[in-house]
Amino acid sequence: MADNGTAPAALFERHQSTLQEAVAAIHGRYFWTPHPESPSPKVYGDEAAPEGQAAFEGYLGKDFPLDQPGGDDRIITERSPYGISLGVGYPHADADALIAAAEAARPSWRDVGPQGRAGVCMEILHRINRRSFEMAHAVQHTSGQAFVMAFQAGGPHAQDRGLEAVAYGYDTMTRYAGAARWEKPQRKGDPLVMDKRFHVVPRGVALVIGCNTFPTWNSYPGIFASLVTGNPVVVKPHPRAVLPLAITVAVAREVLAEAGLDPNTVLLAAERADEKLAATLALRPEVKIVDFTGSTEFGDWLEENARQTFVCTEKAGVNAIVIDSTDAYKQMLGNIAFSLSLYSGQMCTTPQNIFVPGGGIETDEGHKSAEQVGADLAASVSRLLGDAARATGVLGAIANDGVLRRIEEAGKLGETVLESTDIAHPDFADATVRTPVIVRLDADRRDVYGREHFGPISFVVTTADTDEALRLMRETIAERGALTAAVYATGEDVLAAAEKAALEAGVNLSANLTGQVFVNQSAAFSDYHGSGANPAATSSLTDPGYVSGRFDFVQSRRHA
Amino acid sequence: MADNGTAPAALFERHQSTLQEAVAAIHGRYFWTPHPESPSPKVYGDEAAPEGQAAFEGYLGKDFPLDQPGGDDRIITERSPYGISLGVGYPHADADALIAAAEAARPSWRDVGPQGRAGVCMEILHRINRRSFEMAHAVQHTSGQAFVMAFQAGGPHAQDRGLEAVAYGYDTMTRYAGAARWEKPQRKGDPLVMDKRFHVVPRGVALVIGCNTFPTWNSYPGIFASLVTGNPVVVKPHPRAVLPLAITVAVAREVLAEAGLDPNTVLLAAERADEKLAATLALRPEVKIVDFTGSTEFGDWLEENARQTFVCTEKAGVNAIVIDSTDAYKQMLGNIAFSLSLYSGQMCTTPQNIFVPGGGIETDEGHKSAEQVGADLAASVSRLLGDAARATGVLGAIANDGVLRRIEEAGKLGETVLESTDIAHPDFADATVRTPVIVRLDADRRDVYGREHFGPISFVVTTADTDEALRLMRETIAERGALTAAVYATGEDVLAAAEKAALEAGVNLSANLTGQVFVNQSAAFSDYHGSGANPAATSSLTDPGYVSGRFDFVQSRRHA
Repeated sequence: MADNGTAPAALFERHQSTLQEAVAAIHGRYFWTPHPESPSPKVYGDEAAPEGQAAFEGYLGKDFPLDQPGGDDRIITERSPYGISLGVGYPHADADALIAAAEAARPSWRDVGPQGRAGVCMEILHRINRRSFEMAHAVQHTSGQAFVMAFQAGGPHAQDRGLEAVAYGYDTMTRYAGAARWEKPQRKGDPLVMDKRFHVVPRGVALVIGCNTFPTWNSYPGIFASLVTGNPVVVKPHPRAVLPLAITVAVAREVLAEAGLDPNTVLLAAERADEKLAATLALRPEVKIVDFTGSTEFGDWLEENARQTFVCTEKAGVNAIVIDSTDAYKQMLGNIAFSLSLYSGQMCTTPQNIFVPGGGIETDEGHKSAEQVGADLAASVSRLLGDAARATGVLGAIANDGVLRRIEEAGKLGETVLESTDIAHPDFADATVRTPVIVRLDADRRDVYGREHFGPISFVVTTADTDEALRLMRETIAERGALTAAVYATGEDVLAAAEKAALEAGVNLSANLTGQVFVNQSAAFSDYHGSGANPAATSSLTDPGYVSGRFDFVQSRRHA
Repeated sequence: MADNGTAPAALFERHQSTLQEAVAAIHGRYFWTPHPESPSPKVYGDEAAPEGQAAFEGYLGKDFPLDQPGGDDRIITERSPYGISLGVGYPHADADALIAAAEAARPSWRDVGPQGRAGVCMEILHRINRRSFEMAHAVQHTSGQAFVMAFQAGGPHAQDRGLEAVAYGYDTMTRYAGAARWEKPQRKGDPLVMDKRFHVVPRGVALVIGCNTFPTWNSYPGIFASLVTGNPVVVKPHPRAVLPLAITVAVAREVLAEAGLDPNTVLLAAERADEKLAATLALRPEVKIVDFTGSTEFGDWLEENARQTFVCTEKAGVNAIVIDSTDAYKQMLGNIAFSLSLYSGQMCTTPQNIFVPGGGIETDEGHKSAEQVGADLAASVSRLLGDAARATGVLGAIANDGVLRRIEEAGKLGETVLESTDIAHPDFADATVRTPVIVRLDADRRDVYGREHFGPISFVVTTADTDEALRLMRETIAERGALTAAVYATGEDVLAAAEKAALEAGVNLSANLTGQVFVNQSAAFSDYHGSGANPAATSSLTDPGYVSGRFDFVQSRRHA
């Protein structure tokens, strides 16, 4: 049984003021976070870094400590992109065992109510935050992200997205009265008086399908949106990125147990490669919600086939930059070069298509031909990655063989402006590290740039003029989707035209980024990630539609 | 061009305080309405009734005045259930013409923005309200509702549901900042500062498919939810109930034109019987939202096939009453008798299955056997409908031949407790009027009571005890859906068990209704109609999920 300090009501009270701040932030959309992004001892304490590393190393070569239903079967499916052996064994259960356990947990989690569930969710996030160093190593050695990025994107930024989902869910559930007295005046005599109660009814078991590259950041919105709205969650990690979600599930189960609740409210569904457990689970009638990040092919399959569910998918896209003109040429090139290089372009938000007018562009350094822009961008990338230690801190490692193969074959797609090279990692001899490749294409090669080439592969596409560039951006995104778009222009007319094109394409736009904000990055509580308005994603992280599909209101009434 | 008084901004200003009251009401869920339900000269003025009747009669035998794209083709498809000839000709256009016109209107309606759109929507509703008598005749002679009900349900109550949708849409769009300055502190130096703008991006063309029995009440939520969120609306009425929606579309187009906007933002899609225009429109790629009220068969087809859309359906169900005990036996019988008789049971909310324990029930008039309860209910219905004038005021007329056929065949389904009879209408010699039929069944005849029998057909189902009654209510509703459930019980334990069963089944529950509130009726701003949590409907009228699937947020950002 829960003692008073760990019961849901106590957890709600403990975290209530932070929740109120989070709700205010999603309304105001200003900068806010309770999760410091700096991996500094001044913030997380002197012991946090060594303890986190020790915790990570303690998992290696052993069975992960997770007591779940489904028997003693253990599986090992991960290898680090940095070449080290992980060898962590995870409990393996079949769909029947997972669904039965989640279904059994369902009524008790529903009956906790919105406040208590928000309290439990926030305590889970709070404890995950304190384990951000441990999580950083786990994310680094599954995704291939460099350590600092793994800390930030896999830790505090992912926690922010989780908390944002809690805030949206809590706000949407509690914004409407839970009880009301209804008094209808009558022409003669006393009014009709009814007492009414309004309940949040969760949809059912939720399935969250994680990806290889951002195991926590892309999963936390779905996990916490479904949890706070009352649905038990089965977390199905990518077979190559299990550890970050195993830690997450372990923390969640610990908090649930301490709160006197059924730990099977959150379950890990580790699977063997090619087991297709996600597809099996998604078709189970008990499963009513699916969150997915990954390939267009499987995302489309889920949308077509998991008909009994509320499906949120984030799939591939053709992110675009239109360069019209700039008054900060060097800074523009530096900003784009960093965006192309960060985590070896393995972000769903990395720009792919850079549209440049064939007649060149006006800059603060004079007119630049389209050819010159491509060459200068290549030089900027090379400069950024000239030093191996700095390069690997930006690039991280290549997550999987699919990316590697696409890099190797990119040269055949057009005229190579920048070749990819190997870099030896100073700390990990067997790490797979590659620099970006840039290819030049004419505007008529839409067969190439009109589809996604996931990884550090981008195209400088020469267009007739800026109008054609904006049109191609709009058309390719409307057709194939995108999570990001950017424009560089000195004239307000072009910026307005770009904004209009972005609205038509349903894509979030960044204008004239030249400093330490990059088009690949979005800030929780302020920036929307994805929109739902183009084929790259069915919804935004996070907006009202993302949470309201996870529960219904059901009422009762009687005479007062 | 719009003059200042009819422009969207002016309309928003004019209706802003009412909108604020509506938004407060959906949050508080108390009684509120700006649309008086009484068809009294004291409320609507001495001229309203005769003017409304004259307006209605002015339509008969003529082409309806509606200037729409698509040529000069006119069609006549209606006949009054009261036997009078309508002969109103409606413009007929094919899907290509309708979609082209709606698509052309789309950008301008989007660019009006949330405030202006709310203003236009509220002006439309305001003008419709002033034409409530005209609308009452139109609804009476298409649906078959009695006049006073047609006035209330087709007029003010429908307008309430439309305004409720405007309030939900406006609130959900404007609850998040439209612009924000984001300032992120840096460890060294100045903060990063970005200016951001957040746009509401509507989904696309919306299709609203009306029904025969509640042409306005069931269509207004979809029409106004889609409109306020920025989507042009194609209104496809039921071929037997065109006039109420033709009037609605005409008013909308008048307000749009006066506001300087494209009247094709709202279009009427009248069709010939068996033309299948709804299916054709629903599959058009430009159509992104579908609202439908009608058969389970076509609703399921839409959910399966209109995959590019946000689909909201309201379909059939097996509404239930569980009688355990009562301390107001006569009033209970009177309340149920009225619910079964109102509009000849042709409401999606009319109770069908009345579960009574085989051992009988305890009442303030002593123990009553199950057989006695059935007989007393039949007597109560007969008493209510004993006078022809009063009876037709409750029953209205039978809307279509399908209902008539089911009444005629109901006797074969079990043991008849109350036979249906013809009633001669005092004002309309050719009206088709029938009283309800009640049939007794054992609990094992789930093959009969487990599916919907739309019309004045109900079953008294004898169960082993109240537990079995609650279980059958829960199971049949979870399987086949329901819009309403009710319970009569004197013990709080049974009421609590009923509420739990209703939550599990996802159905709204009324307890111990004995006065002038009936289970068939739901009050906008307070009662949810449908829930989305059982198969009868994919969503509630109206809740956050109902509006948030109709638009996305898309942002832009730049350095401050």
